Amino acid sequence: MGSFKVAVIEGDGIGPEVCRAACEVLEKTGEIFGHEFEFNKALAGGIAIDETGECLPEATVNLCRASDSILLGAVGGPKWDDLSGEARPETALLGLREELGLYANLRPATIHMALKNACPLKEEIIGDGIDILIVRELTGGIYFGEKGWKGSKNGMKAYDVESYSEAEVKRIAIRAFDSAMNRQKRVVSVDKANVMESSRLWRRVVTEVSHDYPEVELTHMYVDNAAMQLIKDPRQFDVMVTSNIFGDILSDEASMITGSIGLLPSASLGEGNFGMYEPIHGSAPDIAGQNTANPIAAILSSAMMLRHSFGLIEEARCIENAVTKVLESGYRTYDIKDSYKIIKSEEGRESVSSMIMGCKEMGSLITNMI
Amino acid sequence: MGSFKVAVIEGDGIGPEVCRAACEVLEKTGEIFGHEFEFNKALAGGIAIDETGECLPEATVNLCRASDSILLGAVGGPKWDDLSGEARPETALLGLREELGLYANLRPATIHMALKNACPLKEEIIGDGIDILIVRELTGGIYFGEKGWKGSKNGMKAYDVESYSEAEVKRIAIRAFDSAMNRQKRVVSVDKANVMESSRLWRRVVTEVSHDYPEVELTHMYVDNAAMQLIKDPRQFDVMVTSNIFGDILSDEASMITGSIGLLPSASLGEGNFGMYEPIHGSAPDIAGQNTANPIAAILSSAMMLRHSFGLIEEARCIENAVTKVLESGYRTYDIKDSYKIIKSEEGRESVSSMIMGCKEMGSLITNMI
Ligand SMILES: CC(C)[C@H](C(=O)O)[C@@H](O)C(=O)O
Ligand SMILES: CC(C)[C@H](C(=O)O)[C@@H](O)C(=O)O
Repeated sequence: MGSFKVAVIEGDGIGPEVCRAACEVLEKTGEIFGHEFEFNKALAGGIAIDETGECLPEATVNLCRASDSILLGAVGGPKWDDLSGEARPETALLGLREELGLYANLRPATIHMALKNACPLKEEIIGDGIDILIVRELTGGIYFGEKGWKGSKNGMKAYDVESYSEAEVKRIAIRAFDSAMNRQKRVVSVDKANVMESSRLWRRVVTEVSHDYPEVELTHMYVDNAAMQLIKDPRQFDVMVTSNIFGDILSDEASMITGSIGLLPSASLGEGNFGMYEPIHGSAPDIAGQNTANPIAAILSSAMMLRHSFGLIEEARCIENAVTKVLESGYRTYDIKDSYKIIKSEEGRESVSSMIMGCKEMGSLITNMI
Repeated sequence: MGSFKVAVIEGDGIGPEVCRAACEVLEKTGEIFGHEFEFNKALAGGIAIDETGECLPEATVNLCRASDSILLGAVGGPKWDDLSGEARPETALLGLREELGLYANLRPATIHMALKNACPLKEEIIGDGIDILIVRELTGGIYFGEKGWKGSKNGMKAYDVESYSEAEVKRIAIRAFDSAMNRQKRVVSVDKANVMESSRLWRRVVTEVSHDYPEVELTHMYVDNAAMQLIKDPRQFDVMVTSNIFGDILSDEASMITGSIGLLPSASLGEGNFGMYEPIHGSAPDIAGQNTANPIAAILSSAMMLRHSFGLIEEARCIENAVTKVLESGYRTYDIKDSYKIIKSEEGRESVSSMIMGCKEMGSLITNMI
């Protein structure tokens, strides 16, 4: 029995509708298992710019600090596209990560077998499924290094510094190895050690950390090769750990490979149990407010919250199982409407069925399955 | 009628055998069209380490400088894997690029329709083919920026500086737009302008250059999104232009998407007509010397040499057509042996045929088709 304070940052576009579905699911899970969730809304992103002039108001950061975890929808949209750099809605994400010390980004890339045919890769490559966990460093590297402009003999010059300390690499490596212990016990560390000094330090520290995990197999892979291997044979991967910028690229590549962008959750973790949970999809302003979004990524993000921030493993599984059941029964949102369920009759005849529904209805259906 | 000096750097692994095939093809093309090629071998990579103690001996750089172009096989292998950083064979590539000012890397990612079923993506995504040209900046960015180690309060810290000047971006953008003028007239410039200052400069300069090419459509795309779009819908791309490190990752991703790594050539160009031409595949030490390599990437690299360094467009096409003819007739090397040709008989029955051959035989076959 627990009582948990959740800061809810709905953000822009489809953010509000998918957050509502996720909160409904959390609420129901709480009822069943006897936990209480207190949801407090806060502004960030485009809506915060419109209402307060800042993409990440101090009040939001304060509320987050006073909470046990954050549920975030999505930020950004064409309305704010003309703003430059720092002023843009997405900067709120960088701010939250930095202010709250969310240094570990966990991005599962998995295929729900019911959605196998949404995967862009050929069947023989997918085989019986893909299940990768990308552990991306989130508060270091080129994102937060020194940057600027300088005059030079070739006109202006702009620079960004990628830099990693031993301590930064150590803590993210520990996260990766800890995760691997609960999985297939294989870690691939991705770097560019044939070119970058920071990668050489990365490789050395990850190797050192691996000595504390004798059961886990560690391999090193160059980032260009990793980008290829994800396509050639994604099943070779269990846990991948990498820097902020390489993780940005590879985790998005891996998500697309699953064909299920609308279903993938993520967790951004700091020291202790605190974490921010968000779908990996964007704010999809073109379909916002039309009740056609897919709430599953947000719902699965709330399951990650239960597991990682609150230690509620059974409750998390309950949500995940409800999602699987709903998908296996052929229910679909618009984004995955073509990934039909093929139903085999008793006589062996195959027919195709898919029941397409709105964001709200999908949310309620999953809630009821819990 | 021309006379051209080609420096041939066979390198390691399968490098020598694929270079031999490419030279044979050039020789024959010269006979037919009345050109003379003078081939001069030079050492680089692992073999150079073994014979001279250095991966890129000065004699090699001098020979390259005295030549009209370079044909390079591949460098590296497990024998030298224990060497660290600077001492490794691959460092020769970085040295050649820097010493010779080869700032523009052209990497076509195309599917030969005869090899369509080697592509890891589903048929509906490939459609009637993929034809992308990635233009990667090759002598700047994080590869050649300041780098090093420092003590810090968190232990050691290592850093690498990504930096671009206006002049550097301008010349690579011009290459991209010039290429687009001979193609579909669409350029996608890939950056991370929502995070990096060097990307903001990149975006500004590319946009400025685009004003000189009113017929070419320019779009900007973030690198994480580009990594996704390449999988979701590779046919949307014509020319992509990007930085050294992003290009390293995306060009390898794009190659894997074609399913034809053994067939893809590349060109690294400097000012004027000078260029280095090499297959994108590695040295494949496991199959070296067994006559099982695929010489097509090297052969197509020699075609790129004719086109870009010597202006011999018809001759280049001749080689490319010979390759297409051979593939369409069902001839295969071991790496693509499963991409059968499906033959339709006059009665409409389908049968499968593929004639598998060695590197040398494939080289001769293509030579004879010219
Ligand atoms: C919006 C952007 C700054 C952000 C990032 O690059 O980290 C996004 O791509 C992500 O992966 O969460
Ligand atoms: C070997 C390595 C240094 C090189 C690079 O990163 O440029 C290679 O990956 C390439 O793309 O040619």
